[in-house]
Amino acid sequence: MSDTIKPEERTAAAPAAIHDGPVTLVNCFVVHPERDDAFLDLWTGTSGYFRAQPGFVALRLHRALSPGTHYRYINVATWASAEQFQAAHANPEFRALVGQPAWSEFPSSPALYEVVTESASAPRG
Amino acid sequence: MSDTIKPEERTAAAPAAIHDGPVTLVNCFVVHPERDDAFLDLWTGTSGYFRAQPGFVALRLHRALSPGTHYRYINVATWASAEQFQAAHANPEFRALVGQPAWSEFPSSPALYEVVTESASAPRG
Repeated sequence: MSDTIKPEERTAAAPAAIHDGPVTLVNCFVVHPERDDAFLDLWTGTSGYFRAQPGFVALRLHRALSPGTHYRYINVATWASAEQFQAAHANPEFRALVGQPAWSEFPSSPALYEVVTESASAPRG
Repeated sequence: MSDTIKPEERTAAAPAAIHDGPVTLVNCFVVHPERDDAFLDLWTGTSGYFRAQPGFVALRLHRALSPGTHYRYINVATWASAEQFQAAHANPEFRALVGQPAWSEFPSSPALYEVVTESASAPRG
């Protein structure tokens, strides 16, 4: 999926096959460094909607430290199921949020993922 | 940062300024669906090195569910500090791993991030 500014493409496409279990949205945003405040205001308002939806589990919004990074912000959000993710993105309230003209300044590339490997470091003595 | 297949660009660039606290590597990979097994073999071997390094905290490897996704695999890995991340990527063992010719098939775009917002759903009664 390539970067988009179209409201109708601001939703990750549904899984190609039926998927049981949790899903992870990874949404990468192009944000000019001088526009951080405008982006964060807009994103915080939109994410408030998602946090209140059934099936929302957790999210982390990341900002780039490495210079020259194309996607300066990446949202990684876990949902309990693909169905609940899709339902949260199918209603008029969501469409009104992503249809705000201010979003056109910040292209993004949302897609759904599954976790295939998870690892944590062993405690060190 | 754009996709690269050059071994010397397989490391996320250091933060532009001194950064205290944990950092998150987000590394997005272009993998043809028919090459999943080859990618996972290569990635698992390389990640085994990182998991043993001081400062490694945790990782999740994600595979796309949405059809047509450009980056079919995304590794999200937390490190205790940017310094430890850089040290793990500066030694000959790492350079030998990412210098394997097999990696040239899988372009990636590594960058370091900080978490600016974190949220989890409230328990539901």
